[in-house]
Amino acid sequence: MGKRIGKNTVLFETQPSIISYAAVCGKKEAEGPLGDEFDKIFEDTSLKEPTWEKAESRLQKEAVTTALEKTSLHFQNINYIFAGDLLNQCVSSSFGLRRLGIPFLGQFGACSTMAQTLFLAATSIEAGIANYSAAVTSSHFCSSERQFRFPLQYGGQRTPTAQWTVTGAGAAIVSQRNDNDPKIKQATIGKIVDLGIKDINNMGAAMAPAAAKTIISFFEDTHTSPDNYDAIFSGDLGQVGSDLLKELLKKEHITLGSNYRDCGLMMYYKKDQDVHAGASGCGCSASILCSHILNNIKNGTWKNILFMATGALMSPTSSQQGETIPGVAHLINITA
Amino acid sequence: MGKRIGKNTVLFETQPSIISYAAVCGKKEAEGPLGDEFDKIFEDTSLKEPTWEKAESRLQKEAVTTALEKTSLHFQNINYIFAGDLLNQCVSSSFGLRRLGIPFLGQFGACSTMAQTLFLAATSIEAGIANYSAAVTSSHFCSSERQFRFPLQYGGQRTPTAQWTVTGAGAAIVSQRNDNDPKIKQATIGKIVDLGIKDINNMGAAMAPAAAKTIISFFEDTHTSPDNYDAIFSGDLGQVGSDLLKELLKKEHITLGSNYRDCGLMMYYKKDQDVHAGASGCGCSASILCSHILNNIKNGTWKNILFMATGALMSPTSSQQGETIPGVAHLINITA
Repeated sequence: MGKRIGKNTVLFETQPSIISYAAVCGKKEAEGPLGDEFDKIFEDTSLKEPTWEKAESRLQKEAVTTALEKTSLHFQNINYIFAGDLLNQCVSSSFGLRRLGIPFLGQFGACSTMAQTLFLAATSIEAGIANYSAAVTSSHFCSSERQFRFPLQYGGQRTPTAQWTVTGAGAAIVSQRNDNDPKIKQATIGKIVDLGIKDINNMGAAMAPAAAKTIISFFEDTHTSPDNYDAIFSGDLGQVGSDLLKELLKKEHITLGSNYRDCGLMMYYKKDQDVHAGASGCGCSASILCSHILNNIKNGTWKNILFMATGALMSPTSSQQGETIPGVAHLINITA
Repeated sequence: MGKRIGKNTVLFETQPSIISYAAVCGKKEAEGPLGDEFDKIFEDTSLKEPTWEKAESRLQKEAVTTALEKTSLHFQNINYIFAGDLLNQCVSSSFGLRRLGIPFLGQFGACSTMAQTLFLAATSIEAGIANYSAAVTSSHFCSSERQFRFPLQYGGQRTPTAQWTVTGAGAAIVSQRNDNDPKIKQATIGKIVDLGIKDINNMGAAMAPAAAKTIISFFEDTHTSPDNYDAIFSGDLGQVGSDLLKELLKKEHITLGSNYRDCGLMMYYKKDQDVHAGASGCGCSASILCSHILNNIKNGTWKNILFMATGALMSPTSSQQGETIPGVAHLINITA
């Protein structure tokens, strides 16, 4: 049975473990600093599918399939799959996973989805209702541009605060405690924070206050500070958002040092792959968690890390109607 | 700790209980057979909000607030809110609930959302990570028409198989076992089923195969039959879909008798409120569960019921791209 700690954090007593994981990505991501760590690379980002939406669906399917192939499990052994994405009605998930025959629970947390699905997969294990649960999410540069911004053919100019949506997906298989695997120890699920940012080309600024609130809450509840962790990752705040997060935390006398990194700033080379304020999309933190981060826990480099994915919960319709952008952030504490 | 039963069903050992619930709806729903059972009725379905999307957001907020007002709890007592809707990026949920200060987990199950959120709320209690969790979903005729079909001003003709999206919302508060309250005993989460239906004006037919698969799975796993339950409800299959469900079950020698009803056929008067094949939308089964169904369990009429909400997991984009409609159905067994 799990236990509540402080106001808003939970401890998973059974220590659900990530027994397998996989990350897949496109050409641009493969050319970035983490290129060697991804399991599968699709040089042709259409994945030879007739639409970008179908290409993104394939990314999810490939991530789940690859994660399962590393185990002796089959699709029918997985009791639940928690899956979500950025597309309207989460169609990357439902269409990508519809043939797998796994009980399906669609999630929407925007770019916080990897933390959200991991949390719920762990919860299903802790509750004793699942032996194996999967968590997966994806994003695709081309399907996102079409849906949230402009059709690619339009060739719209990007602002300096804009982030580049990652073409990629990450999947994790969670099960009962296993000594050799990374464990989901604690988690803080965030409240929605909306401080009135309206600029849809500045998601980092919209999400940073939510990130600050969640991580402060976690430190308070666990009586710990950034120094207690080998590494701390935010999802895809990018340059603007991660600078703002540090600033917001400084006001609360919390200093994020050199052990803090933002996945949005880890995906591409700053100089040679100029993407302005960094990377974004559900697939950004998902593919980095399910490769680089979990690899470094498995190989003993890190023993205790924080993974906090952030999401901007607006839609093109809400923005067109003049609404602000609500943000959310979910934090997962993973140990060796 | 929960327990798996058979292939795909779980038993919640701690019997999480629905300690409060509320349903709100619009004018047309209030004029239907269940009108007297709803907690709040909005004669002006704009709720005096400037957009239909904001009106739908308000429905969710009103449902949650009303459910909480029946208890001695405040927003800050609720550990998690599981919320979802039909709009792109689930904005009814995120915008409607953003000021409540409750840790937020967005869900997308289309019209299966009430069963999905109830299942996850119960799971959070079973896992011991929450004292109180909320489950809520909504739909609105006008926001759905704009997004999925045509702007209302266009005055499009509806086909005989079309269903009418309910303007309404339902919310439930789930907590540890409480003798006097309805209990979430068992659940079967569905797999995605896609038999190739492409007609977006015939959702019932697209969802019926998924409903059949889930309920057959539940009866097999629990070694029970329809006769063992006081009442069985499907979500919003409507006339076409519920007839098809009965037919599909008959082939498996399972007969749904007079204890079976579809929420899509309960919401409006067939003769005086002609809506063609029935009602639909997340708010349909949600508002009927959180009024009529739970009322009848509370007052002792029913002791053991099945609530199976069904969802069609397509988007306008996927349909425009010629895709079929994947269906899903989640079943919850609720006892007195």
